[in-house]
Amino acid sequence: MTDEFLNNLVDKIRASDKRSIAKALTIIENESEGNEKLLKGLYKFTGKAHRIGITGPPGAGKSTVTNGLLKLMNEKGLKTGVIAVDPTSPFTGGALLGDRIRMQDSGLLENVFIRSMATRGSLGGLCKNVVEACDVLDASGKDFIIIETVGVGQSELDIAQTADTTLVILVPESGDSVQAMKAGLMEIADIFVLNKSDRDGADAVAATIKNIIHLKPPTPDNWIIDVLKSTASKNIGIEELFEKILEHKSHLMKSGYLKTKRQQQLKKKITELLTNKLTVSFWGEDKKKYLNDNLELISEKKTDPYTFVEGMLDKK
Amino acid sequence: MTDEFLNNLVDKIRASDKRSIAKALTIIENESEGNEKLLKGLYKFTGKAHRIGITGPPGAGKSTVTNGLLKLMNEKGLKTGVIAVDPTSPFTGGALLGDRIRMQDSGLLENVFIRSMATRGSLGGLCKNVVEACDVLDASGKDFIIIETVGVGQSELDIAQTADTTLVILVPESGDSVQAMKAGLMEIADIFVLNKSDRDGADAVAATIKNIIHLKPPTPDNWIIDVLKSTASKNIGIEELFEKILEHKSHLMKSGYLKTKRQQQLKKKITELLTNKLTVSFWGEDKKKYLNDNLELISEKKTDPYTFVEGMLDKK
Repeated sequence: MTDEFLNNLVDKIRASDKRSIAKALTIIENESEGNEKLLKGLYKFTGKAHRIGITGPPGAGKSTVTNGLLKLMNEKGLKTGVIAVDPTSPFTGGALLGDRIRMQDSGLLENVFIRSMATRGSLGGLCKNVVEACDVLDASGKDFIIIETVGVGQSELDIAQTADTTLVILVPESGDSVQAMKAGLMEIADIFVLNKSDRDGADAVAATIKNIIHLKPPTPDNWIIDVLKSTASKNIGIEELFEKILEHKSHLMKSGYLKTKRQQQLKKKITELLTNKLTVSFWGEDKKKYLNDNLELISEKKTDPYTFVEGMLDKK
Repeated sequence: MTDEFLNNLVDKIRASDKRSIAKALTIIENESEGNEKLLKGLYKFTGKAHRIGITGPPGAGKSTVTNGLLKLMNEKGLKTGVIAVDPTSPFTGGALLGDRIRMQDSGLLENVFIRSMATRGSLGGLCKNVVEACDVLDASGKDFIIIETVGVGQSELDIAQTADTTLVILVPESGDSVQAMKAGLMEIADIFVLNKSDRDGADAVAATIKNIIHLKPPTPDNWIIDVLKSTASKNIGIEELFEKILEHKSHLMKSGYLKTKRQQQLKKKITELLTNKLTVSFWGEDKKKYLNDNLELISEKKTDPYTFVEGMLDKK
């Protein structure tokens, strides 16, 4: 990547040119040549967008809520970007055709940029370049960036560490699972959304969630976690949800916790970058060959993995 | 850890002494002093147990199926161990009291050893020492080891890479999600179990799963993935499931794919061990301080994370 190409691309991204944003995201997702140079060039223009993580079980209506928020923010003249890493999201083409058609409307809006990213090994979890993809959208001047991912397991922790505000979307049918999931989804929510709340049992589930919230230790910035009800398919509750997001955003800024969160994100990013570079530089062709040549020996218990690894590190 | 203590502990583990197994698992889970020395000492006695991964959404009945299999294997005089890393599993104490009581019966059997492990950051995913915990049970002479984990996201991939045979447990109610989850759970199953199959819609869901299986490329060893029905709470279908597991085990051995799988597991273990040792040895106190001292500077965009990381590597 020449400096001229880079400068040109950065300028166009900052001017919010959709094709240039898409090009940059492809470079970053594929880790193509110039990937890091581009991220270096964009870094100083990042940090302005508010990042909203949206997670919850499959079928909770994460995409419908996202779509509702996108339309509302568009009406308010706000610029938005979406990174969908949910294998079940219509944005990523993972779900039924009907869903996909339903979602396209917000994608066509001038101030909305939607990008789907493949999940790691196609098996869920945040893919590793999601944070970097958000940086591109951030540098392009978006006001809000939504990261949508299916939530159980490691991806929850990832999203909570990446987003400024984390929404957990549940449905009345999640009732049984609410208790079960408390160790996971319950820990990361800044705002709960009980979607499809026109269905039976909504009040009971909302009450259960509230009970669990009361058992939690307070957040570092004493934010009061609330449970909002929505019926996103009918656009009910979206306005209130957006108000609550704004309230959380302003709370984060006033309490100074946003700065702490962002520094934690930065620390995580640097740590991961270093781990990646250390391992990549360690695993030269000779070392890969040496490992492959010795696998049989270790399988046959002639040595053990721990002694073998010590040997490899000594050879370094 | 003295050599005498180690040899004594290894001997007792090999004699299947429950207290010694528990002690070893605690050392490994906490990564206490002597942790690696113990694993080195046990390694040559591992590799005999067949490892069964059990995963699926919360509420699918993973623990009930596990319990059924444990009782059956116990009746057949087989020795079994369970590592439960599912935050929703009664084994780990994550669920309701009723469940927990229901499960204790198999835990009291002489030839069954059950251990729960905390999940990584209490947010799901396989905790990092699960493989090592299985090695302890393996060295203690277990015939089968069951690893139970809640399945969505990264934990699925982990379990599929750790287990010899992966069971995915679904319920008729998963219907909606089956399509949605195909990118995840669908990819890793060696055997599907449709539990609670006395409920409405079981046949339709079974048919859907079968359709999805047909769309998949064949496994490297041409194993035919099947969908079994069970009602584990009434002990229905457990015998057939166990037969199918034995069939898969024998298929893996005949095709030679078990050896390939085990070598892949070994390679993964060595790679992770190396990454861990490289990063631990990199992050001395001076480097940690240097990072903390400079976080503010990077936040203020005086430099960027990429340039900063290059600088840290050069300093090395």
